[in-house]
Amino acid sequence: MKWYVVASLLTVLTSSQGILTTLSQSNGKYKYDYATVPFLAEVFKLLVSSFLLWRECQGVPPPKMTTEWRSVRLYPIPSIIYLIHNNVQFATLTYVDTSTYQIMGNLKIVTTGILFRLFLKKKLSNLQWMAIVLLAVGTTTSQVKGCGEASCDSLFSFPIQGYMLGILSACLSALAGVYTEFLMKKNNDSLYWQNVQLYTFGAIFNMARLVLDDFRGGFEKGPWWQRLLNGYSITTWLVVLNLGSTGLLVSWLMKYADNIVKVYSTSMAMLLTMVLSIFLFTFKPTLQLFLGIIICMLSLHMYFAPASMLVDLPLTAKATPENLVEVSVDRRTDS
Amino acid sequence: MKWYVVASLLTVLTSSQGILTTLSQSNGKYKYDYATVPFLAEVFKLLVSSFLLWRECQGVPPPKMTTEWRSVRLYPIPSIIYLIHNNVQFATLTYVDTSTYQIMGNLKIVTTGILFRLFLKKKLSNLQWMAIVLLAVGTTTSQVKGCGEASCDSLFSFPIQGYMLGILSACLSALAGVYTEFLMKKNNDSLYWQNVQLYTFGAIFNMARLVLDDFRGGFEKGPWWQRLLNGYSITTWLVVLNLGSTGLLVSWLMKYADNIVKVYSTSMAMLLTMVLSIFLFTFKPTLQLFLGIIICMLSLHMYFAPASMLVDLPLTAKATPENLVEVSVDRRTDS
Repeated sequence: MKWYVVASLLTVLTSSQGILTTLSQSNGKYKYDYATVPFLAEVFKLLVSSFLLWRECQGVPPPKMTTEWRSVRLYPIPSIIYLIHNNVQFATLTYVDTSTYQIMGNLKIVTTGILFRLFLKKKLSNLQWMAIVLLAVGTTTSQVKGCGEASCDSLFSFPIQGYMLGILSACLSALAGVYTEFLMKKNNDSLYWQNVQLYTFGAIFNMARLVLDDFRGGFEKGPWWQRLLNGYSITTWLVVLNLGSTGLLVSWLMKYADNIVKVYSTSMAMLLTMVLSIFLFTFKPTLQLFLGIIICMLSLHMYFAPASMLVDLPLTAKATPENLVEVSVDRRTDS
Repeated sequence: MKWYVVASLLTVLTSSQGILTTLSQSNGKYKYDYATVPFLAEVFKLLVSSFLLWRECQGVPPPKMTTEWRSVRLYPIPSIIYLIHNNVQFATLTYVDTSTYQIMGNLKIVTTGILFRLFLKKKLSNLQWMAIVLLAVGTTTSQVKGCGEASCDSLFSFPIQGYMLGILSACLSALAGVYTEFLMKKNNDSLYWQNVQLYTFGAIFNMARLVLDDFRGGFEKGPWWQRLLNGYSITTWLVVLNLGSTGLLVSWLMKYADNIVKVYSTSMAMLLTMVLSIFLFTFKPTLQLFLGIIICMLSLHMYFAPASMLVDLPLTAKATPENLVEVSVDRRTDS
C-alpha cells in the first residue's frame, strides 16, 4: 500500500472521529464514561493485530518476532509518555483556558519536526522546515477567535506557567510520536507483532486509568467493568471502532512512512472537520478558516513536492548567462 | 544603490506615511483638505526630478531623453488608470464596508503577479508563485477581525457586485504598477527625464481632481488654490514630503527592480505600521498579526532566497546514488 493512501485514510478517519464524538453526545454531554473509549479502542487494536499476526504465522516464511525482554521492555514507554502528557495537559488547563490550550497544541507540529531531526537524525531541507512552520501557522490561523465569539480573553493574558506547561505538553506529545517511530523502525520485526506488544501495554495502562478513576470516585458508580458499556449507543461503538482504526493506521505510518506524514494527516483532518462542521452543525465559515486551508495546502505542496517541481533547476539556469557572455567575448576577439 | 536598500527605505517611509497621516489628524478628522496632499506630493516629485535632470544635463555624457510624441503620450496612462481605479474604489465602497474593501485589497498582490507574468513576460518559479499567494494570505491574516471588535459583519455577506468591483479594483491597481514598470524599462532614457514626464501628468491629473471637487462643491469653500494650504501643520508637510519621497523610490524600483519587490516593500510596511501602532497608539497586539508576520517573513524568504539555499541541490543529490550503483556494478564485474 502507498503511504499517501494510508495518510489520506487517516485524515478521513481522524476527521470523522471529531464528528462522531460530537454526534455521540446528547445535549453536549456524554451519556457514557468517555475514559472507557480509549480502553476499548486499545482492546480492538490488540484483537485485530493478534488475528493478523496469527494469520501471518500460518504463512511461509513466518513473521520475524523479537521476544527478548531487552526489546519487549521498550514497548510500554509510549504509554508512559502519554500518561505523563495527560497529567501535564491537566496541569496546563489549570492555568490557561481550553481555546488557548488548543492553540498552543499546534506547537506540537514544530516540536515533532525538531525531535524528528534530533532523535531520528532525519535531514530536512530549509524549505521543508519552512513548510513545517507554515503548517503550524496554518492550523493556528484557522483557530483564531473570530469577531463576536463569547470569550474574548487575550491569548497573552495567562500566567507564564501556563505557557511553559503548554510547551512541555507539545514536547511530550512529539516525543511519544518520535519514540514510537524509532520503536517500529529499529528492526524489521513483523508490524503485527510490534502492534501486539504496543497495544497490550496500551490496554493495561488504560485499564489502570479506569481503576484509578474508580478509587478517586470511591467506587460510587461501581467498579469499571460493571459500568463499562453503560450508555453506549451505536454511535459510541462507531467512535471506538474509528479510534481503533486510526491507531492501526498510525502504527502503519510509523513503520512505513514517518511522523511528519502523520502530522500532515492529522492537521488536514482538523481542517476537514471544521469544513464538515459547516454543513453538519451549522458552524459559521470564517475568513480565518479559509486562510488556514490555503496556508496548509501550500505547506503540504512545499513539503512533499519534488524540488525540481518547485524551483527552476539552479545549475542549468545559472549556467546559461555565463555561457552567453563567453560567446560574445570570443566573437569580439575574432573580429 | 542596491535594490534591497531602496526597498527597505520604501518600507520604512510607507510605514511612516500611515503613522504621520494618523498624527496629522485632530480628533480623528483632517483639518486640511486631504485631496491637496497627493497634488503637492506630485509637485514635490516634479521639482526634485527636474532639479536632478538639470544637474544630469550639466555632466558628460548628457542624459538620454526621448522627446518624440509617440513616447511622451504614454506617460499620462498610469495617471488615467489611477483615475479609473479611484472611481471603481468609490463604487466598491457603496457595496461593501471599509474593512472588507481593505481585505480585498490584498488581492492586488496576486493580480500584480499575474499581470507581471502576462504583460512583462517575466517567468516565476512554482515556489515564487506560492510565495506571492502566501504574501497575500499573510497580509490578510493580519487583518482578520479579532474577538470583541465593533462591527461583526461577515466578509461574505455583501452583494456580489461588491466583490466583482473589488476584483476589478485589484486588477486596475496591478495594471497601473505593471504599466509603469513597462514604461520605465522600455528604453534606457534617464530615470529623471521619465520621472519629469510621469509627474507632470500626475500633477495635472491631481489638479484636475481639485478643480472637479470645486465644481462639485459649488465653490462654497473658494477655488482650490486659495484653500490649498488651509489647516496645514508641520505634520501635514511631513505627510507631503513623505508621500513624495515614497513615489520617487517607487519610480527607482520600477526601473531598476520590479513590481514584485515593490509589493513586498509595501506589504511589509503595512505589518510594520501595525507593530508600531501597538507602541504609538495603544493598538492591541493580536494573534493574527503575529501569524501574519511569520507568514510574510516565510514568503519573503521563499521568493528571494536562492534556490540552492532552500532545497538540497537536486542534480547532485540524485546523481550520487546512481554513481554508487555504477561503481559497485563495475567492481562485481572485475572480481
